[in-house]
Amino acid sequence: MKIEDIDVTQYPNSEKIYVKGTLHPISVAMRKINLYPTVKIENGKRVEYPNDPVVVYDTSGPYTDPEAKIDINAGLPRFREEWVEQRGDTETLPDITSSYGRARRDDKSLDAIRFPVSHKPRRAKEGRIVTQRHYARKGIITPEMEYVAIRENLNNKELGIESYITPEFVRQEIAAGRAVIPANINHPEAEPMIIGKNFSVKLNTNIGNSALSSGIEEEVAKAVWSCYWGGDTLMDLSTGDNIHETREWIIRNCPVPMGTVPIYQALEKVNGDVKKLTWEIYRDTLIEQCEQGVDYFTIHAGVLREHAKLVEKRLTGCVSRGGSIMTQWCVLHNEESFLYTHFDEICEILNKYDVGISLGDGMRPGSTHDANDEAQFLELDVMGKLAQKAWEHDVQVFIEGPGHVPMHKIPANMERQVKACMEAPFYTLGPLTTDIAPAYDHITSAIGAAIISSLGTAMICYVTPKEHLSLPTLEDVREGVITYKIAAHAADLAKGFPGANVRDDALSKARYDFRWKDQFNLSLDPEKARRYYMESRRDAPDADDRFCTMCGPNFCAMRISQCITEECQK
Amino acid sequence: MKIEDIDVTQYPNSEKIYVKGTLHPISVAMRKINLYPTVKIENGKRVEYPNDPVVVYDTSGPYTDPEAKIDINAGLPRFREEWVEQRGDTETLPDITSSYGRARRDDKSLDAIRFPVSHKPRRAKEGRIVTQRHYARKGIITPEMEYVAIRENLNNKELGIESYITPEFVRQEIAAGRAVIPANINHPEAEPMIIGKNFSVKLNTNIGNSALSSGIEEEVAKAVWSCYWGGDTLMDLSTGDNIHETREWIIRNCPVPMGTVPIYQALEKVNGDVKKLTWEIYRDTLIEQCEQGVDYFTIHAGVLREHAKLVEKRLTGCVSRGGSIMTQWCVLHNEESFLYTHFDEICEILNKYDVGISLGDGMRPGSTHDANDEAQFLELDVMGKLAQKAWEHDVQVFIEGPGHVPMHKIPANMERQVKACMEAPFYTLGPLTTDIAPAYDHITSAIGAAIISSLGTAMICYVTPKEHLSLPTLEDVREGVITYKIAAHAADLAKGFPGANVRDDALSKARYDFRWKDQFNLSLDPEKARRYYMESRRDAPDADDRFCTMCGPNFCAMRISQCITEECQK
Repeated sequence: MKIEDIDVTQYPNSEKIYVKGTLHPISVAMRKINLYPTVKIENGKRVEYPNDPVVVYDTSGPYTDPEAKIDINAGLPRFREEWVEQRGDTETLPDITSSYGRARRDDKSLDAIRFPVSHKPRRAKEGRIVTQRHYARKGIITPEMEYVAIRENLNNKELGIESYITPEFVRQEIAAGRAVIPANINHPEAEPMIIGKNFSVKLNTNIGNSALSSGIEEEVAKAVWSCYWGGDTLMDLSTGDNIHETREWIIRNCPVPMGTVPIYQALEKVNGDVKKLTWEIYRDTLIEQCEQGVDYFTIHAGVLREHAKLVEKRLTGCVSRGGSIMTQWCVLHNEESFLYTHFDEICEILNKYDVGISLGDGMRPGSTHDANDEAQFLELDVMGKLAQKAWEHDVQVFIEGPGHVPMHKIPANMERQVKACMEAPFYTLGPLTTDIAPAYDHITSAIGAAIISSLGTAMICYVTPKEHLSLPTLEDVREGVITYKIAAHAADLAKGFPGANVRDDALSKARYDFRWKDQFNLSLDPEKARRYYMESRRDAPDADDRFCTMCGPNFCAMRISQCITEECQK
Repeated sequence: MKIEDIDVTQYPNSEKIYVKGTLHPISVAMRKINLYPTVKIENGKRVEYPNDPVVVYDTSGPYTDPEAKIDINAGLPRFREEWVEQRGDTETLPDITSSYGRARRDDKSLDAIRFPVSHKPRRAKEGRIVTQRHYARKGIITPEMEYVAIRENLNNKELGIESYITPEFVRQEIAAGRAVIPANINHPEAEPMIIGKNFSVKLNTNIGNSALSSGIEEEVAKAVWSCYWGGDTLMDLSTGDNIHETREWIIRNCPVPMGTVPIYQALEKVNGDVKKLTWEIYRDTLIEQCEQGVDYFTIHAGVLREHAKLVEKRLTGCVSRGGSIMTQWCVLHNEESFLYTHFDEICEILNKYDVGISLGDGMRPGSTHDANDEAQFLELDVMGKLAQKAWEHDVQVFIEGPGHVPMHKIPANMERQVKACMEAPFYTLGPLTTDIAPAYDHITSAIGAAIISSLGTAMICYVTPKEHLSLPTLEDVREGVITYKIAAHAADLAKGFPGANVRDDALSKARYDFRWKDQFNLSLDPEKARRYYMESRRDAPDADDRFCTMCGPNFCAMRISQCITEECQK
């Protein structure tokens, strides 16, 4: 599957719009869905009542802008470069810093797979810190902060919906550590977005090859596809060949923040031999990726040597790749984890690029049996202490969470996280609420994701139908993203997030009006909704029936209901 | 799609077993999944540790028994006939009672589509009541009660898990109205099952043709398919041609209780003209279906004339077919609903066959906007009064619930239902937690279904991906059933239902042991899990790798985790 083959034009009757900032000269991309009028017959005459367009959150970047020229070999426009430059606290380096990055650059055999354009890396000037948290604490509202404030509001202004989300509120939340804007200065192609419990729930998608599958083109296609359907951030979890080059291709074409787990690449560098991992190799990997533009790193620094013995008590041991690697390292060396002992140094690197830390939960339960156990909660307590340390360095930080957790044990996860991590954003994988449905774990986990995000989890990591079984295809990515959009949106409704119900109400009104096309266009997956409808109406040229094939004309409740209403009005 | 074409042999390594009763000479069907041993290398030697088989709830009836002779034209064995006969309180009628049933029987043009075998209907002797509730209140533990007690316990005895579910407990729950066993004496082919909050959560599937689609063979195939994947009851919502004959075919081949909405057929009898509906037509329809063997009727008796005006206030009016029909009838006639005014008479008919009542929620919200509104809750209060009336006639009754409800409004539904309906079992459609995902409403609703059933809802009605768009295909039925098995099981885990975790723990252990085949065989959909795995492992002859394609061998956390454990043990 190549990028050219994927169709990102499936949002009918939609326009790309750009809302201007007032504090900064910024343009915030959104999607406006235009609606058909409601048609009524009044006194024998056909009367049309217009319906307001609905503006929806848009993660697809320039790919859905008909004015934008897309060239995968050139990468997306680097619109945020100017914002960063104007702050005057960064400098362009003459060369890349990491030895690995240099070695890859000098390896001619890689020319064939190399991203064609090279950009000089940018870093904070000596002694400066360039994180959004740093600015927020100094009272500065950055363009990034205004951008997300506008982005979170959507229809609110037009519909007179009161919202607490102002640029100043954004600044306060970031300063308080309750929210993060992952925004590496070396990823100026990405549109700013915010992760925090007082904002709309976000979803992350995982892509990446393994030793057994998938090439560069396919991974870039998956990235674009994920953004197209609604992924808010993207993690590249590649563990196979050419991780460095694959990542460059993805970042340069990625309109959303991207995360990685640097220990994966570090392990590749030592040919998979955990014992040979060193702080120096890891450090070089961090710098390599900071300069490529990764926006956040999952770092399993909360996994300590003393936790290893707790793994034995479990039904499914340690199921986090990073967690198991670091645990094994501690055991093999009988030393404390270098991620933990060098955590300050990590922060001092990251705050020079504004790379966020996602504290990885190495001890997340891999089965409902192991949920909320000692290993999991002890690690969470350590993560709270590390979050505080990150804050001291003005590094933006959030906390990863489980995993497999039965429903009744979910609230305790959220409560303990809030307490241990002082409201740093929580970012969970599901959780899966039962273990018995491989091939349907997007669903077992969407239940848990909806519940935990309604309780305050800020971002949920998608799970595809292939979880536990194999790597996702493009169709699996789509299924996973839509499923998690559902969980996130259901949570937004439950949280009473300002304006969240506008789309629901518009779609329901369209449904009741038999405006089928609007019903499809307002839905999370217009193409599939329309296809399902049309499959059973092959005779109908278009979707304009005043009933559906579920009930047929005589048994259409909505049709009868409308007769009732007319009857009552007589 | 014909019944012959559907494959009901996709449960590998499973055996059909029959557990004997102790109070009655009954055999309770279950599925036993045999597992492979755990293999360890100890001191260089291969050691096998056997794993206990796991017994799972089995709704598939004789279709998965290799000893059973299946003949769709003969119907399933009528094993419960003997139990009914032995009670001595029923009689076989010389002829069917309903005029419509007689007319259909005498119509030669229907011979071609008629079910080939005819059975004489059975009814309570004059003055007798033959409901499970009636027996329960008299202190009698019927074979049906013992059957469900054994069925709910599964692995508990073998594993020493303490369970409160005894035949006497079942009797008490039925006597108290907290549980029902839908078991029409004219549907002796069905295996008894129980619906109540202190039992495992059940799921219903809807099938049925509409004026626009689907024939008899297809509906029978869907019924079998639904039972095969795990549907606990089945509602035939047919509204097209030949409802009477279609129903006969389904019931005679259906190993689970079947429900209908008799008002649909009544409306067909008056050619879709709501105004022409009468109590007499409806009454004749009830008797017709009681004698065919329908196990429960959805009756929208809680929709009152005064509720009509409340529909106007809604965004999506009345979306229940039965509710909208009855509301329109009330408005057209300016009379109270005949379902309400004749409710006692209905109960007096039903308790002669033991047909349960599922009080239909005609005012269920059709959009998250309308959730928990006045129309919905006023109707619920009326339903509570009707439930009490049903109990006075010893009719088994349960209560239908919404619909579209955002997560934060779900608990109020459960609380109000418990209070208004004095713990009569709650049976909900979803609820859908957002309106914006047509084509994915099995997921929007599974979230709500899992939550509400963890709070005490006894049965959840499945929603397929085609909801709002068209009638489900066989694949949609499967997707819907598995999705709802997930929701129901997640709720069982959350409720701490005795032994619910046995299957999860066994599957997770298989996963950690890399017993891939056991992982597939223990899953809700072994065929799909295995297919997804194999799709990416075309080179592998069978599923025996000690890693999966998600991570590859070097990055397999479970593999590393096992090394850690061995390391620690040195």
